[in-house]
Amino acid sequence: MKLRDVAALLNGEVEGDGELEIVRVAKIEEAGGGDISFLANPKYQKYLESTRASAVIVANNLQVSAGHKLALLRVNDPYVSFLKILQHFNPPVDPLPVGIHPTAVIAASAVLGENVRVGAHVVVGERVRIGDGAMVSHNVVLGDDVAVGENSLLYPNITVYNGCRIGARVIIHAGTTIGSDGFGFAPKPDGTYEKIPQLGIVVIEDDVEIGANCTIDRATLGETRIKRGAKLDNLIQVAHNVVIGENTVSAAQAGISGSTKIGKNCMIGGQVGFTGHLEIADGTKIGAQSGVHRSIDQPNTTIFGYPAFPQRQAFRIQGAIAQLPDLLQTVRELQKRIQQLEAKTENQTK
Amino acid sequence: MKLRDVAALLNGEVEGDGELEIVRVAKIEEAGGGDISFLANPKYQKYLESTRASAVIVANNLQVSAGHKLALLRVNDPYVSFLKILQHFNPPVDPLPVGIHPTAVIAASAVLGENVRVGAHVVVGERVRIGDGAMVSHNVVLGDDVAVGENSLLYPNITVYNGCRIGARVIIHAGTTIGSDGFGFAPKPDGTYEKIPQLGIVVIEDDVEIGANCTIDRATLGETRIKRGAKLDNLIQVAHNVVIGENTVSAAQAGISGSTKIGKNCMIGGQVGFTGHLEIADGTKIGAQSGVHRSIDQPNTTIFGYPAFPQRQAFRIQGAIAQLPDLLQTVRELQKRIQQLEAKTENQTK
Amino acid sequence: MKLRDVAALLNGEVEGDGELEIVRVAKIEEAGGGDISFLANPKYQKYLESTRASAVIVANNLQVSAGHKLALLRVNDPYVSFLKILQHFNPPVDPLPVGIHPTAVIAASAVLGENVRVGAHVVVGERVRIGDGAMVSHNVVLGDDVAVGENSLLYPNITVYNGCRIGARVIIHAGTTIGSDGFGFAPKPDGTYEKIPQLGIVVIEDDVEIGANCTIDRATLGETRIKRGAKLDNLIQVAHNVVIGENTVSAAQAGISGSTKIGKNCMIGGQVGFTGHLEIADGTKIGAQSGVHRSIDQPNTTIFGYPAFPQRQAFRIQGAIAQLPDLLQTVRELQKRIQQLEAKTENQTK
Repeated sequence: MKLRDVAALLNGEVEGDGELEIVRVAKIEEAGGGDISFLANPKYQKYLESTRASAVIVANNLQVSAGHKLALLRVNDPYVSFLKILQHFNPPVDPLPVGIHPTAVIAASAVLGENVRVGAHVVVGERVRIGDGAMVSHNVVLGDDVAVGENSLLYPNITVYNGCRIGARVIIHAGTTIGSDGFGFAPKPDGTYEKIPQLGIVVIEDDVEIGANCTIDRATLGETRIKRGAKLDNLIQVAHNVVIGENTVSAAQAGISGSTKIGKNCMIGGQVGFTGHLEIADGTKIGAQSGVHRSIDQPNTTIFGYPAFPQRQAFRIQGAIAQLPDLLQTVRELQKRIQQLEAKTENQTK
Repeated sequence: MKLRDVAALLNGEVEGDGELEIVRVAKIEEAGGGDISFLANPKYQKYLESTRASAVIVANNLQVSAGHKLALLRVNDPYVSFLKILQHFNPPVDPLPVGIHPTAVIAASAVLGENVRVGAHVVVGERVRIGDGAMVSHNVVLGDDVAVGENSLLYPNITVYNGCRIGARVIIHAGTTIGSDGFGFAPKPDGTYEKIPQLGIVVIEDDVEIGANCTIDRATLGETRIKRGAKLDNLIQVAHNVVIGENTVSAAQAGISGSTKIGKNCMIGGQVGFTGHLEIADGTKIGAQSGVHRSIDQPNTTIFGYPAFPQRQAFRIQGAIAQLPDLLQTVRELQKRIQQLEAKTENQTK
Repeated sequence: MKLRDVAALLNGEVEGDGELEIVRVAKIEEAGGGDISFLANPKYQKYLESTRASAVIVANNLQVSAGHKLALLRVNDPYVSFLKILQHFNPPVDPLPVGIHPTAVIAASAVLGENVRVGAHVVVGERVRIGDGAMVSHNVVLGDDVAVGENSLLYPNITVYNGCRIGARVIIHAGTTIGSDGFGFAPKPDGTYEKIPQLGIVVIEDDVEIGANCTIDRATLGETRIKRGAKLDNLIQVAHNVVIGENTVSAAQAGISGSTKIGKNCMIGGQVGFTGHLEIADGTKIGAQSGVHRSIDQPNTTIFGYPAFPQRQAFRIQGAIAQLPDLLQTVRELQKRIQQLEAKTENQTK
């Protein structure tokens, strides 16, 4: 593909030789001849001098020192353009051929759509519905009455317990468990616990992506729900009756306790923990490792810390903590000076 | 089932029409006609006015404003009564029929009890014993010499390494790994590590429940042991040679380092971490995300924080941290006032 | 095996009866007749009096009170000697016989070495290469183009996505996911996200050990790489494009965000979190639950805390935090004393 064809695809403008042959996409510091790369972060501008890429996608307004030999492709948003050309050169690999592997065990009452892909050793329970074009990869277990929507991708070794519903175009990575019992026990007088039956389900709406080895518990009654477009990273815990709003994203190893409702368009950092029964407003941003113990009423608040405070206060606290050893010193010194003052004043009044 | 029959089952008293037909159990804010609900938390009392439930289970001593049309069922403990009627209307679903799926691979020397349920693609190693009524669901792997007690439930995609022993009425959720090698390496002079063989086992006593995607490592020598009635949530790490006491419960994503012994009837919050070789007294309660670096000698202590302190001290520290930015300000101001005082006193002595 | 034969094996010297028959290895507090134990930690010296072991391995220079009846075996390093004799008495169990289980599904284009062990219900994709002597245990899924080196051990229920490369003598425990998509999404103006294709791979070099239920994401472009001899505990998250250096060890539940590069010979505590794009120098030691937000330039630094600071500063801060409630009290008191001084000085000037 010639550079000028790439430019046409990206609505960009070539600075240099439009006839260059582009064969691959690569990071600017790793690129070689025939590669096209991109520069979005000014931090990487130094690589413009040293890269061996044939061409680099840059912003329309980027100032470049004269004399470089590199072909440039100027666009509005280099990163978005890079994603487009990346997908052009790397059409998604189909991880499983269409069809049902002969080792899959599929209940007679299950209904499979057209062009579904079912891997080896899959187990599909009674009355399961799998939408057109969906993939259920090797060793996945779908309990009775599970639904999987159109074009969803379930990677290997996933378990979906009975009754849970997965929407369309959902991606779930390997090893994730959906619909295990919520953690509910009633204490008995003798110190033992009685299990509270967990009778609800999990609903995962359209366009959600869930990472590897996550756990999403079924509701006690009703639903645990991950709403449309939410994105969860790996090893995340979602307890019973939690709701995660539309387009909320969470980094890895976050944990959300029972019945907490998180709004839409939130951003949750890695290893964040939420206590139960909170309500978190839309657009809340939460720094990594924060401990969230209170509901957030005000939309678009940024909070962090353990316990979490609004950003301004959290920064002040964090700054103050770093100064704390010096503060101790200062106060000890002030104590002495006051003693001296008191002694002097005492003398003068005598 | 008529409301008066429900009342008989729960040893309760009807206020209203005992002939009402009850067909389902639901949460008070979601209930409709034919549903029975419950009210245990006074916070939800407002729903008594608006619920569309046919009847609500309430406490004997609950004050209700006159004029409501709702049938009430008065009992001692509404929540416990609710659990009873919940189980009555929802007898546990048998997730697998009795019998052995033809795709299961079972060693000839394995001994299976009566009425066991073994799912598809299960692997059962040499000399494994599975007790009467136990379930080993799809894609579970039981290594050689594993024992599973009566009526235990192992959900899909669990791995139990060789030699580990699981008691009776144990529930283990999908994706959990039992008996993987403890994390033990001896440093060598060249900076590399030599693996320390992990020769012990894991013992899980009766009536334990373990959540999804947990990891319980085998002991170096001897046993890692989860004692009778303990309950673990999802994604919990239990290292080699750890002991967890009877009826201790732990929320999700907690991590317990090697050789730490936790007493009985403890409560561990989510994402708590323990360093190794600690002893935690019976009845200890530990707040979410705490870092426990020291043994707890005194039973029934509540601790939290990073690092964890006894509750009283931890609250004082947490409160003080919130005031820290103001404190810095105050000290700076005091510094100035002292300087002024010193200058004045200096002048007066001249 | 006679005690003097054990001594010969360990290059040690017997103090006592060299003809004693040794049949087993055990911990000093649990040993009985016929057992050999060891004493490396002085804390356990009390057990020398009470142990029922037949013999104990001790350091050459250990002072022992006279009159004990125990046979001693004196060596340079009791723990290393103990490991040697442990392995002598417990040769590693072969968890799977050589050969390919008939239920395994293996692509025709896969190339398997000699003496490989492939378990039941394994799935091996197109063009996969499995080195001589490697084990791929039950229910493991290897995507297309995966490579597994000589004598590596893959325990049950592991998923390795397409294209990932695993070196020689690597051990991966059950339930781990290798090569799932990195967490990358580009925000769109309407608040939804576009998935950034994750086209790179994961490379795991020789002699690495990875615990149970870990997640190692594939790179966006290029590689996520775990270098030779690194050891990871359970439930660890390694994001896209992360590099972990040679012989670095990490305790359980640590999380490393995208593109962070960790040097060699580092030690990472449990539940530590790293933000993305950091560079951590060789030999860095990081305390449990720390939050690492900045790169570490100086090799062999010890850091801890949330946020993490160098050890000296972190200890000062931690100490100061414990004194914080008293400090508040002190400052309030100083405030009063200054007021009194000011009043007095005011009076005197009048």
